[in-house]
Order: sequence, then C-alpha cells, then structure tokens
Amino acid sequence: MTRRAFVHRISTHSPDDVSGLEAALGAGRIDPSSIVAIFGKTEGNGCVNDWTRALASRALREFLGQHADPDVATRACIVMSGGTEGALAPHITLFEVRISGEAAESDALAIGRAHTGDLPPEAMGRLSQVDLVADGVRRAMADAGITDPADVHLVQIKCPLLTPERVAEARSRGAVCVTRDPLKSMGLSRAASSLGIAVALGEIHRQSLDEQAIGVEWQLFSNRASASAGVELLGHEIVVLGTGHGWSGPLRIDHATMADALDIEPVRSALARVGLKSDGQLAPDQRSRLVALIAKAEASSTGLVRGYRHTMLIDSDIPATRHARGFTAGALASLVGHAEIYVSGGAEHQGPDGGGPVAVIVEAAA
Amino acid sequence: MTRRAFVHRISTHSPDDVSGLEAALGAGRIDPSSIVAIFGKTEGNGCVNDWTRALASRALREFLGQHADPDVATRACIVMSGGTEGALAPHITLFEVRISGEAAESDALAIGRAHTGDLPPEAMGRLSQVDLVADGVRRAMADAGITDPADVHLVQIKCPLLTPERVAEARSRGAVCVTRDPLKSMGLSRAASSLGIAVALGEIHRQSLDEQAIGVEWQLFSNRASASAGVELLGHEIVVLGTGHGWSGPLRIDHATMADALDIEPVRSALARVGLKSDGQLAPDQRSRLVALIAKAEASSTGLVRGYRHTMLIDSDIPATRHARGFTAGALASLVGHAEIYVSGGAEHQGPDGGGPVAVIVEAAA
Amino acid sequence: MTRRAFVHRISTHSPDDVSGLEAALGAGRIDPSSIVAIFGKTEGNGCVNDWTRALASRALREFLGQHADPDVATRACIVMSGGTEGALAPHITLFEVRISGEAAESDALAIGRAHTGDLPPEAMGRLSQVDLVADGVRRAMADAGITDPADVHLVQIKCPLLTPERVAEARSRGAVCVTRDPLKSMGLSRAASSLGIAVALGEIHRQSLDEQAIGVEWQLFSNRASASAGVELLGHEIVVLGTGHGWSGPLRIDHATMADALDIEPVRSALARVGLKSDGQLAPDQRSRLVALIAKAEASSTGLVRGYRHTMLIDSDIPATRHARGFTAGALASLVGHAEIYVSGGAEHQGPDGGGPVAVIVEAAA
Amino acid sequence: MTRRAFVHRISTHSPDDVSGLEAALGAGRIDPSSIVAIFGKTEGNGCVNDWTRALASRALREFLGQHADPDVATRACIVMSGGTEGALAPHITLFEVRISGEAAESDALAIGRAHTGDLPPEAMGRLSQVDLVADGVRRAMADAGITDPADVHLVQIKCPLLTPERVAEARSRGAVCVTRDPLKSMGLSRAASSLGIAVALGEIHRQSLDEQAIGVEWQLFSNRASASAGVELLGHEIVVLGTGHGWSGPLRIDHATMADALDIEPVRSALARVGLKSDGQLAPDQRSRLVALIAKAEASSTGLVRGYRHTMLIDSDIPATRHARGFTAGALASLVGHAEIYVSGGAEHQGPDGGGPVAVIVEAAA
Repeated sequence: MTRRAFVHRISTHSPDDVSGLEAALGAGRIDPSSIVAIFGKTEGNGCVNDWTRALASRALREFLGQHADPDVATRACIVMSGGTEGALAPHITLFEVRISGEAAESDALAIGRAHTGDLPPEAMGRLSQVDLVADGVRRAMADAGITDPADVHLVQIKCPLLTPERVAEARSRGAVCVTRDPLKSMGLSRAASSLGIAVALGEIHRQSLDEQAIGVEWQLFSNRASASAGVELLGHEIVVLGTGHGWSGPLRIDHATMADALDIEPVRSALARVGLKSDGQLAPDQRSRLVALIAKAEASSTGLVRGYRHTMLIDSDIPATRHARGFTAGALASLVGHAEIYVSGGAEHQGPDGGGPVAVIVEAAA
Repeated sequence: MTRRAFVHRISTHSPDDVSGLEAALGAGRIDPSSIVAIFGKTEGNGCVNDWTRALASRALREFLGQHADPDVATRACIVMSGGTEGALAPHITLFEVRISGEAAESDALAIGRAHTGDLPPEAMGRLSQVDLVADGVRRAMADAGITDPADVHLVQIKCPLLTPERVAEARSRGAVCVTRDPLKSMGLSRAASSLGIAVALGEIHRQSLDEQAIGVEWQLFSNRASASAGVELLGHEIVVLGTGHGWSGPLRIDHATMADALDIEPVRSALARVGLKSDGQLAPDQRSRLVALIAKAEASSTGLVRGYRHTMLIDSDIPATRHARGFTAGALASLVGHAEIYVSGGAEHQGPDGGGPVAVIVEAAA
Repeated sequence: MTRRAFVHRISTHSPDDVSGLEAALGAGRIDPSSIVAIFGKTEGNGCVNDWTRALASRALREFLGQHADPDVATRACIVMSGGTEGALAPHITLFEVRISGEAAESDALAIGRAHTGDLPPEAMGRLSQVDLVADGVRRAMADAGITDPADVHLVQIKCPLLTPERVAEARSRGAVCVTRDPLKSMGLSRAASSLGIAVALGEIHRQSLDEQAIGVEWQLFSNRASASAGVELLGHEIVVLGTGHGWSGPLRIDHATMADALDIEPVRSALARVGLKSDGQLAPDQRSRLVALIAKAEASSTGLVRGYRHTMLIDSDIPATRHARGFTAGALASLVGHAEIYVSGGAEHQGPDGGGPVAVIVEAAA
Repeated sequence: MTRRAFVHRISTHSPDDVSGLEAALGAGRIDPSSIVAIFGKTEGNGCVNDWTRALASRALREFLGQHADPDVATRACIVMSGGTEGALAPHITLFEVRISGEAAESDALAIGRAHTGDLPPEAMGRLSQVDLVADGVRRAMADAGITDPADVHLVQIKCPLLTPERVAEARSRGAVCVTRDPLKSMGLSRAASSLGIAVALGEIHRQSLDEQAIGVEWQLFSNRASASAGVELLGHEIVVLGTGHGWSGPLRIDHATMADALDIEPVRSALARVGLKSDGQLAPDQRSRLVALIAKAEASSTGLVRGYRHTMLIDSDIPATRHARGFTAGALASLVGHAEIYVSGGAEHQGPDGGGPVAVIVEAAA
C-alpha cells in the first residue's frame, strides 16, 4: 500500500465560489474525505484588510463540512493568499492524499502537514515564532515520510499578523509587540516563519540566528519557503511538498530560486527537469501537464532590479507587495503560457532579497 | 548627406531629474540642438491626476531652453507616460536627428514628427479627433521621408484628456462632451488617436469608420499605434519611427503585435529579425544592444486572458491600466533581461483587445 | 394591539463579527424572530470589489439561520454598505418589529419592507429598473401601514450592479447593457433605483421621466432615497421608514436634505424637531438618545463645493465615493459627537447634486 | 514704523497654477518683494511619492524669481502640504511682511521664519533633529519679535524624509538610519520636528526627553506645532505665527487644540475669541473674515475615536493620513462653512494622540 497525492486546480468566480468544487465533486474527480490542504489565490489586496481570504476560507470550510467528516474540515490547511494583480487568475489548488495499491516511486509527490498552537501577539516576528514554526515543519516532514531535508521542494505556511486590537491586548498584559503597524507585522511574521523553515531544512543554524536578524538580514533565507500572513488565524498552518517514502502516482515536483524579480531561467530549468523542456513559452500541450506553479515575489530592498531603479517601495498608493506580485506574475506567466498560477507577495527570507522560491508540480507524461 | 538618428536611454532619479542629461551633455554624448523628441516613463499613476508627467515635461523643457535654441524646446515632442508599476524603471529616451556624411541605408532608423492644433473638448473621442490625428501622422511620415505606410514601425502620440473644467467650458458654449468622466476620457482620446493612426497607415478605411466604433469596436486597431493621454496639453504631439529615404547609422527597428498580455513570442521573433536571437532571456551582451523597447499594455475587455479570469477591471483600488502595465512589463522584461523599458497603459485600438503593439530599436552589431 | 419598532446599533470588530449580536441575544435585548432588516457599514472600499459586504451578509444570515425561523433569515433585508472612511465606525443597525399592547402613537417609527424579483443585466440603469423599484417601494409602504408618501422619511434600498460576466451573459443573448464598466454600473443602478423611489413618493412624475435622464439630470431627485449597490444580489431589497397607522413605542424619525457636502444645519434642525436641540455638538446625554443617523454623500459633479474646487472626481487613486463618505462623515460626526453613523456613498438622484438626504432616529425623552 | 502682516488666500487650478498669483499681482494686491512664506495644499497623496509638492514649489519659486529679488525667492518658506481629500480645496496662502506707518497693536499678527542646515539621513527622527529644529524655532521667534513662547500660536515646519537612496548613502558611510521605510520616515521626521517645537516653546523639557520617545510617547506634544514632510528638501523651513513687538494691522490669530478627530468645539471658541462667534456654521459674512484655518489631523493610534473603532490604520488601500485629512476637513469645514482650509496629515506629537492643533487667522471687523 502506498499513498498517492492528487492535485486539482480549479478556477473561481469569486472568493466564495465553490461551484467548481461542486462540479468536480459531482463528476467524481475529487474525494472530499481525502483533502488535506487547499491553497488559493483570492482577489483582495493581500494586505491587512484583505477580507477575501476570510470569505474564501469560510466558504471552503463550509463546503468541507457539508461533504466530509468534521475532522477533515478542521485539519485541512487552508492557505488563502490574497492578491491577483495583473492577469493573475483567482483559483484554488486542492491537495488530496489517497491510499493506493500502486507501487511506490521515489520521485512521486509527497505531502505532509502540521498545525502549530496559537502565537501570543508579543511573540510574533521573534525567535519564539521561528522555533514554533521549525518544530511544525519537522512534524509536517515526518507526516510526509520525508527524512532528508533535501527532499523538500516547498514549505507553504499560513501565519498570523498583528492588529491594533491584538497589540492592545498584549499591552494590557504589559507585553510589547515587535511593531504596532499591521502591514509591517505581516512582513515580520512571514520573516520569522521563513527563518523557521530555513532552520528546519538545515539552511540556517538556529544557534547562529539572532533575533535582530529577523526582517533585516536578507542574506539569510530559505530556498523553499513560502509564507502568507492573514488576519484570520493566530497559529500556523504548514504544508510540506517534496518526495518521501511510500508515495506513488504520476505527479512530480521540483523547485528553483529566482535571484530577482525577472529571473525566470532557473524556473525554465526546473520545468525541464520534470519533463517540460521549452526554449520559449510552454506549448499548449505542455501547459496542460503543468499542474501548479507556486512562487514568491517581492520588491528588492535596494530599490534596484539589475541596476535599474524601481519605485515599488516609494509608492504610497499601491503596496509594494501588490506591485511585486503583478510584475513577477507577468514574468512567470510569459514562461508557462497562462496566469492561473500562485504568486504570493512578501518573500522575506524566502529566497534572496528581491527574488524568491518557485515550485512546479507536473504530471509525468504517460 | 544623410540624416542619422541617435537614441539615448537615460535613467532618472525622480520625475524632474535631469542630472543624467547634464552628464551626457557634459560628456559630449548628446547634442541638444539635434533633439527632436523625448519619450519618458515617469513614476506617477499614469491616470488623470498624474502630475509627474507635467513635472518631468517642465524640467525637460527647461533643460532644452538652457542648452538649445528656443525653437528646439518648442518643437520637441515630449511624451511622458506615467506609471512605472512593478519593476518598470523610470527613464527617458532621447531622439536626436543629426546631419551625417555617411551613406544612406535602407533599413536605418528614420524619425519624423508633427504637432496638431488644439482640440476643442467636445471633439475629443470623436471623428474630428481621428481626422486631426490622421493628418498629423501623414505630416510626420513626410517629415521622416517615409512614403510607404508599411515602413512605419511605431507612431507614438501624446493626446489630451477631459477635465471637469474643460467639460464645463464646453457646456458653457452649449457643446456636449463625449463623457464627463476624466479617466474615461483618457481612454476615448487614446482610442480616437489610435484610429487616426490606423487611418493614416491604411489599416482602416476612413469611410467605413463610424463614430460609435470609437472605444467600442476593438476589432478595429492599428498594429503600430502607441497613444498616451495627459492633462498637460490640448493638441497632439506625434512621432513616427520607421525606415525611410536618406537615413544612415546603425540603428534598426522592427515591431511585433502581442495578441494578449503574455504573448511575448512575437516580440522574441522581432528581436531576432533585428539581430537579437535568443531562446531564453537575452544574454547580457545582447541587452546592451537593445536601445529601446516600446510597448502598449491593457486589460482585455472580456475579463479573461487565455480563458482564465483576470480581476483588473473590477478592482476599484488600482486602475486597470496600472495592473496591465505592471504585468506586461514583467512579461517583456523577463524576455529582454531588464525593466528599463517603455510600457504604456491603455491600448485602445492599439493592437487587439487585451494585447498591444511592441517596437524594438536595436544597434546593429559592428 | 399595535406594532412597535426596535432599533439596535451594534459595533462590529470585523465584517463577519457577530459577537455583539450574540451578546445582545444572550442578554435578551434582541428577539431574532422579530428581525426584519439589518443595515450595516462594513470596512471595504464600497466599490465593485468590496467583498466585506458579502462576508458580513453571509455571517448575518448564518446567525439568523441559527436563531430564527428560516423564513426570518430569508426575508430579512440585509443592506450592507461598504466604506468606513475616516473615523466612520463599522457597525450594524438591527430593525425589529414586535407586537405590542401599547397604544398607537401617530409619530411612532414605522417600518415596512419588500423584495423585488431579479433584474436582467440589460435592464439595469434603465426605466424598467425604475418601475420595478417604484412598485417595490409602494409594497413596502403598504407593509408599513403608510398611506401618505409625506409620512416616509427614508427608503433604503440595496440594488445590484453589472460585472463583466453579467454583461457577457446579456451579450450572449443579444442584449446590450447600459455600460460595461462595473464601477459606473453601480452609479447607474443607484440612480435608477432612486428615481424609482422618487416616483413612488410622488416627487417625480413617471410620465415625464426619460430614460436618458438616469444618471444625468441631477435636478431630478428624491429627498428620502438611500441606495447602495452590491455584487451579492440581482434583485432589490427595500426598507421604508416613516410614520404610519398602528405603531407604538418611543422611537421618532425625521429627515433633512443636505444641499452640499458640508450643509449640516438642516440636520441640526431635524435633530431639534425630534427632541435633540443643540447649538454646537450634541451633548453626551443627547448622543445616547440618537439611535441612528443614515446619510448619503457624494462628490458634486460640478467639481466645486461652495465655489471652491474639489479634487474627488480627478483622483484616480481613491474613488470619489470614498472621498465623499469620509468628508461628509466628518461633517456629520462633528455635529452628533461620534462617528458610528451610516454614511453611504453614491447619492445619484438622492438629494441634490453633491448633497444628500439624512434621516435621524431618536428615542423620545422619558 | 511697524511691520504689518498681510495674508492672501488664493485658489489654484492645478499644482503649478500661478494664474491667481499673476492676477493678484496685476491688481496690485500683492507685493512680491514682501513675501516671506507660502503655505499650500496640493492635490497629491501627501505621502512619499507626492510630486505635486515639488511641482508647486518649482512653479512658485519660478514666479518669485520672475517678480522679486533672487534673495526673496531663496529665503521664502514654501511649505506645500500634499493631500486634498474630500472637499478640501487646493489653494495657497501667501504671507507678506511690509513696513507700515501704522501704530503697533499688541494683538496684531506677527510672522517670523528661519531655515536650518541640511540634516544627514541618519539624524532624521532622532534627538539631533529635535535640537536642530528647536534652535530654528527660537531664531524664527526672534525674527518675529516674540519673546514669550505663550505668544506663539503656530509653528509651521517643512521637514525632510528618507528615501531608499538616502538610506543607502548613509549606509555607505557606515551610518544607520532610524527606518528604511520611506512612509514611516515621514512620520518620524514630523515627530522629531514637533518635539523640537515643543522644546522651543517650553512645553517639554529637553533634558527629560529620551530618543526612544520620538514617535512613541504620544502624551508628549506641542499644542502649536504643524509639521509636513516632503522629499524635496533636506533641511527645515520654519514659520512662526503669533503676536510680538512692533506689529500693526487688522489680522488676529488664535489657536485651539482638538482632543480627537471630531473635537470642533475648542475651534468654535477660538473663532469666538478673535471675533467670529457662531452657534452653528459661520454665516457668509463671517466666512469672508476668516483669512486662514490651519489644522493637523491624524488617526488615533488606539484604533478608536470616542470609544468606536476606526479602520484608518488597517486600510492598506488608502494611507491613514489621507483618511484623517478628509474626515477632519469635513468636521472643520462644517464649522467654518467652506473647505478652502489647510488640513495637514500626520500629527505626531502635534496635539494629543488622534487630535491636533488648529490656528485661525481672522481679519478684525472694521
């Protein structure tokens, strides 16, 4: 007996649209009780007041509650990432794990997950968040049957943020939060979470990590971390994707690291490694085999991309995360030939400054 | 004796930054009295209240006034396009025409220009604007020594827009404007201007053109039109780029048409035709020979890109033009390897719905 | 036996926050089965992509579904108005109608409501929407026991808007919508709805109304109309507030018309008429008797307020409706002494151009 | 011989509009060589990338250069404050000082000014900025002939901000700036400047001031400080308004402190003290005697106004400063009867948290 991962990408018409899910259910393509995680791109601003994430999560949990055991709905990692700038297409990606009679394949996609407890507001953006996440990532790896950190291709994490009310609650207990600025807290929460991933994957030594480095020392990063912050939770939901023991099926995964916002050639190479080799844009038949592309994007802190000035950090009308998502989405979509991809903003310690990790999941040719 | 075009791309640190111009002048790289046009990307929102265009124009005309005859400053076509979303780099591109002793080459870059008179507010977005522009384009072609419209690769135009005050002024005379919405007027002005270009280039028959088609019938378009609207003028400034009689020098030009927001393969082909062939991203040595890339971008009116939903048209926080510029800039920058390119939003009748024309200017290998 | 209206104003911590409702229920202050309508201010942008309205509606209907008969949840008019600019406080106002043994009072608050059927996209912003709404308003008046239109002090309506998909659906049937711009459709839907109210209240004669006047002839308006558009419905939800036959209880209502965005003196007079007379800001004890203030705000189409230029219509970064809500909220809050008031944007044909209707509900002194 | 202050309020049609100035000059109403300061509200976002301030400053200095001695243009304090949210009207207020034969009056308006040297980026938001500003304020008081700090009613200051390039320049010298976030630096620069004012006015003891308090300890503030940050300067321009020795003329000044965003009653009292007593909104004839109203506005850091939640700090689409300006402008405009007033955002240490100082300049009745 092996485990087999299924990944379904479903377009959505609105944040609370589950009609595509209903259709897939009706057609027997999905098995609700096997669902372990749902990643989604929703059409909010991806920042503090992005309520599309909450709306989508509410609709998805309601769907799961109607069609699966309560336990499935409770344990599913629902990671909604707001922000579909440019032509980015709102959609969800559903991860199922089913028991299979097929033989194990060493390069078959493996999925693991874990939840952490709630983080007190004053611990956010600090080493205690790093440790909480590192522990969660290790549990998720174990869940996936992954023993070698090198076999991890993506760790997707949903982490909390600070609101004025949470800061005030901490203050009422005499505790001081790392910032009072909600937007900044999103970045620091993603930063600490990503360093937690780097620690768990052995990319950074925990002992050498200083609290002052969080959100500052960008040369410290994980090449496989993807973190999204949201107001709708206080703990962390963690999903690990890679290759592990005892998995079967045709899905393959690899990853690349973009050195900057338009560094797509490493992604082209990663696609080639999992069977989608192409000089220019992926051909239509290749596109249909690309199940998911998951990427992080951010504005470089230097204010430059390849020596030329960008204005993302000094635009007070549009948050830098929105700029970065739209631009890098254009770069990646022009490579794969469509924009129903997952590009998430705010890549603090997720790949090098201004760049970010990219994971690709592909269905092997029959 | 021939004419020779020089094209200089200069980074800017702010909309009113002329330090790069001063440096080029000091180094003898530019000849102010030969300047015929300046295109620029400035870091405003590219919409109605984008005052960076006015600020840049003011600084540039002041620079010209200090270093060249009054006539040069007056006649220079200064086309500032607001909006440097994503990693788009603010910069200016300077066009000079100098007299040369070199032999004419049939594929050398040719430049022509023309100005039109002021357009009454009530004529904006209507057939009289189409006619005014068509006449201006023909004069600019003549100025460039271009007799065959097929030799035109780009017509860049700066056109006016409606403000509440202009609409009120027209109303006080009993005249009715096509819209009272300033943002919408930008689109209609670009639309009528682009149809004027299409008429001049023989892509559309003037007789078959109905006023109701302006801003509505997107299947009517020019493949070589690029229009930007700005509050700072009432007439039109027109620049034609192509190949004509009596031009010399190493600059080459070609154009492509993107069918949608991520259709970069035609651009790759155009680059190859002028000597920059590349499977993936342009190599660093190729990049240095790419003098300018000028493109239009817009959100498809169908709400879809290759069958997937985009949210640009229903985002009330970020104008669709800003979304489209950032996304398509990402697509094109990932092709050429940097983002100091000219991507302008609002491609009404400029290429097909959701796509747009792209011109590339390249220095021939020595 | 009489009917008695109860109005509860409850602060919310997020769009989906029902904790205040739960507390009121637990304390016996509200009777879920008596709820007929809920008005709310949610913290979205109040424009096309404002999903806070949908999120709040979903949470409220779920609350009603848990605590009242299905019929109550289905029939409740849930009018969420997005946009809490400036210090506007997110909150809901709950309207209950209970049977009472008290004697009828001619000036007691009366409430009526009605729903209309779904409107085809192509009918939006047209005379058929006017007629549909006028009919609905008459039914809501009848429901409230109001026979004289002069006894109506507010008609609150929730109306639909156009999305690219709805426009496309209409086009697929050969039908043409009044606009393809979603933001513009919100204004036209509010406009047609408000003219429908004006027709029902006898403020405008239906025969003299031309379809071309909708969204254009601002001198046509209702002094008691308040319309909000939302993507979450296709028909209309209508609530009438006034004085009618057979109502009891201490709640009083009156209305005023602001002639422009800072015309608060008529509101001061209306407050005085229902017992809250004050030269300056309402005193704290008066504030506690002000149960609800419901107002409309908009940017004047002339670009002027009392002869001075405003920039709301030419700001492409912030929608004019958001500007207008924040500004007029400041004006009204400085009169009543707090900002937990309902100020809704987009007052097309709701009061004069640039102004708007205001209703106040006050608890009579014991 | 005395000095006499003249204050002219002039509407503008765009940031670079000097037509009103030209008209006033032509009519002999203004004397360019007497101009000492110009305050202005321009229609940008008032944040980092607000280029309308630079555009207006450029146009105003050019006007002064054409009509007055170079020294006048150089020394004039040009304080452009971006952001005309809501109905706030773009305008400039011109301050002249002329020699007069009239007798001195102890309550006549007095004006003084000073410039400081450039501030290194790493000093911004720190005690050295506090000290630099305090020294400048004392010099401006001396310039105005004010010896008692109690006679100061307003200190208006224009201060610098940090850009990525300035931070990088400091870093290249091994210096560390207080923040790398440009928007945050605006707040910290205003904060340090305002504490400098408070020190100079004796509201705070310099010895007891800790660097950690800057931008944090909101209970420390000046009741007469108004600070605006802008990218266009590196030093400070300081204007002091009050009453001093040797001034004549009919202009009177007073100030009030708003305790929160809708606390207009103290302003009503200040108006009454200088001759404009009114229960409701100022009457038209009173309005014409109100020469200028200058106020600061900000979102309270507690997330509450009078116990009700506001959402200004968690709105990632609109900066909190824009929200606060629009709302408080509505409150103040509804008091004085028009919106051509100067409301500036970001009131760090300028009045209490969430409130701000307000100065009124009135022409005494003949």
